[in-house]
Amino acid sequence: MNAEIIAAGSELLTAEHVDTNSLHLTAELNNLGVEVTAKAVIGDDRDRLADAVRAALSRSPIVIVSGGLGPTEDDVTREAVALALDRKLVFHPEIAEQIEARFARMKRKMVEVNRRQAFVVEGADALPNDRGTAPGQWVEESGGVVILLPGPPHELKAMFERQCLPRLRRLVPGLAIRTLLLRVTGMPESDLDQLISPVYKKYLNPVTTILAGNGDIQVHLRARCASVGEAEALLAEVGAPIEALLGDKIYSRNGDPLEVVVGEMLHKAHATVAVAESLTGGMLGERFTTVPGSSRYFLGGFIAYSNAMKVDLLGVDPQLLAHFGAVSRETAEAMAAGARRVTKATYALAVTGVAGPESGEDAAPVGTVYVALADPEKSVAVHRQFLGDRTRIRVFTTQMALDVLRRRLMVRA
Amino acid sequence: MNAEIIAAGSELLTAEHVDTNSLHLTAELNNLGVEVTAKAVIGDDRDRLADAVRAALSRSPIVIVSGGLGPTEDDVTREAVALALDRKLVFHPEIAEQIEARFARMKRKMVEVNRRQAFVVEGADALPNDRGTAPGQWVEESGGVVILLPGPPHELKAMFERQCLPRLRRLVPGLAIRTLLLRVTGMPESDLDQLISPVYKKYLNPVTTILAGNGDIQVHLRARCASVGEAEALLAEVGAPIEALLGDKIYSRNGDPLEVVVGEMLHKAHATVAVAESLTGGMLGERFTTVPGSSRYFLGGFIAYSNAMKVDLLGVDPQLLAHFGAVSRETAEAMAAGARRVTKATYALAVTGVAGPESGEDAAPVGTVYVALADPEKSVAVHRQFLGDRTRIRVFTTQMALDVLRRRLMVRA
Repeated sequence: MNAEIIAAGSELLTAEHVDTNSLHLTAELNNLGVEVTAKAVIGDDRDRLADAVRAALSRSPIVIVSGGLGPTEDDVTREAVALALDRKLVFHPEIAEQIEARFARMKRKMVEVNRRQAFVVEGADALPNDRGTAPGQWVEESGGVVILLPGPPHELKAMFERQCLPRLRRLVPGLAIRTLLLRVTGMPESDLDQLISPVYKKYLNPVTTILAGNGDIQVHLRARCASVGEAEALLAEVGAPIEALLGDKIYSRNGDPLEVVVGEMLHKAHATVAVAESLTGGMLGERFTTVPGSSRYFLGGFIAYSNAMKVDLLGVDPQLLAHFGAVSRETAEAMAAGARRVTKATYALAVTGVAGPESGEDAAPVGTVYVALADPEKSVAVHRQFLGDRTRIRVFTTQMALDVLRRRLMVRA
Repeated sequence: MNAEIIAAGSELLTAEHVDTNSLHLTAELNNLGVEVTAKAVIGDDRDRLADAVRAALSRSPIVIVSGGLGPTEDDVTREAVALALDRKLVFHPEIAEQIEARFARMKRKMVEVNRRQAFVVEGADALPNDRGTAPGQWVEESGGVVILLPGPPHELKAMFERQCLPRLRRLVPGLAIRTLLLRVTGMPESDLDQLISPVYKKYLNPVTTILAGNGDIQVHLRARCASVGEAEALLAEVGAPIEALLGDKIYSRNGDPLEVVVGEMLHKAHATVAVAESLTGGMLGERFTTVPGSSRYFLGGFIAYSNAMKVDLLGVDPQLLAHFGAVSRETAEAMAAGARRVTKATYALAVTGVAGPESGEDAAPVGTVYVALADPEKSVAVHRQFLGDRTRIRVFTTQMALDVLRRRLMVRA
């Protein structure tokens, strides 16, 4: 079964704004087994919007229109859909009362213009909006449906989930959906694809999607079958060989990002961690502390951006620094050992490297990175050469550092 | 004059991908004085795409189709446009030779399938692509034009700029465009709008757009006139009173972000800065070091996430910490003073606060933030209460900290 999504609103035709509601709606529709075959953005123009709704409904049994349900003259979705279906708009006094009551709860008086929001397409169900004033509408038409949703994402999401999903499930032939998400790091997307595509390319169902960015790869498998049992069996059949091929490059099976996985490992091991950052300037600490409760294992650390800070804060030997340079295996190891010594953390991670755009006095090329991990026994550095711009190199480095610690914790677990 | 933009490609109908090419194209078209009145995304379906092109051309004289020019069966844009205009596709041997030469330069042999890319709609101009194999096409039709561009953004942008802009300037009545961009921080968007809307609402030209996010507000003014002189005069007429109202809340007039502006002020003052971060866990240092060359003024600092780190690394008096708590004016001031003392920086910024989601033992509510600035004379903290989730509170705090330093540097300048 197919659906089309239309976003109404002139602000979505500017150079600054993109319609993101359709991404959420697409994910929800795909989960029902519904494919989205076209999307459109139309400005605040009643006749154009009516044309778009009419055309979409001629091709697809489900048409969702988001936005344009506000109280002002610019909000033309109600009128456009009525026009497209050749129906009247009917005033619902009980909706006007609900809107008025909502204003009263906020200690405000309803503005007269809000009465526009109480008009509903003839024969349609009004969909209550508990996060805003604009009700949605569910308009059935010759076997198909036009669904009107408010534009603000938190209103749209809640209304779709509570009001539309139950109705759509009755409309759409039943399908059981089961998904598997593997998060992987430490290899390029192209290598991963070469490795696992011989497995997943044999199957149209489950659908396999690979998303990569910032040194992180997500492998999504979505199985759609007539029963839950079949979907789970199919997912296991395709998922097991993929998991075997990726091995310990898989760091998460529940969607958790790497900083959460590493944080849980640290917490379970009753271990603590500190950082000493040159290249990343604080980005690694920032990632650790993105996680609520990270104070249980993350002590803090040092942003040792200048050479003086490496010596003064971390106790790196100035002669070692002068001899090997700030971007070297030896300096990274000394930084990690120093951070561990001063903070008394179980582990310390140190990063140094060249983010560019220029490579400076160190003569190491842009993208050269050393990550060192100090543990109770030793401090050992790993070298990598990244490509890309300053931001990419820094982000990849934090991913690499977290993964170095993850692998160390796996060995000890 | 109006334009419509169609993005071709089934991958743009998934829950993961959004068409961003249209944002770039919209900005370029707006600069020519062309308004975008509708956008669409169509999957790899020749007939649907042909319908969409035909419908768009019936409404708008400029239709741009991006994507679907690759060499595989999925790439149906050439055929769809030929179908929509009822024209043939013509094989251009010289294009096939160029593609073959491009492969040869990469020491590879052209795959047979790439010959598909040498087909051009009858009567169309092929647009050379110096960043990829797929040529674009410029197809004039009864006063209008259909423009075919490759999907990869860097190919599309270069081709649009070099091949399409000169042609469009001949097609579109001449207009001079001048823009003003003000970046503002330290006030909510609603307050800013209330302050300046009495000025800009009087004018349809220049168009004023306000974009807000992460504690940062951008005010864009775009004047379109028959001559450069008129556009500049109009921009001055509207811009001057807005600048007067916003005063020193404006931190940038050239688009530079706050960390660049503050970095330049530090560099000019021959001053250095260090940080001591609790709440933000490294995010403030990360923002400073986003800027290439930041090592000239950013020394580094401390991520003092645990109380022990505040005492051990920054020398905060344990009794003061116990008495006032980690989230307090006094602790923030002691952290900044300690960071300045240890690093010998001209200035030190310290941040402490409660990022949530829970407020912990400190009893300060989520969103409580103290930023302290230590300079050669004293250490003074500023208090703010932010709303929102953990990420929002942390990002707003870095913006606040940078602005505290900016204001201090303004006074000294």
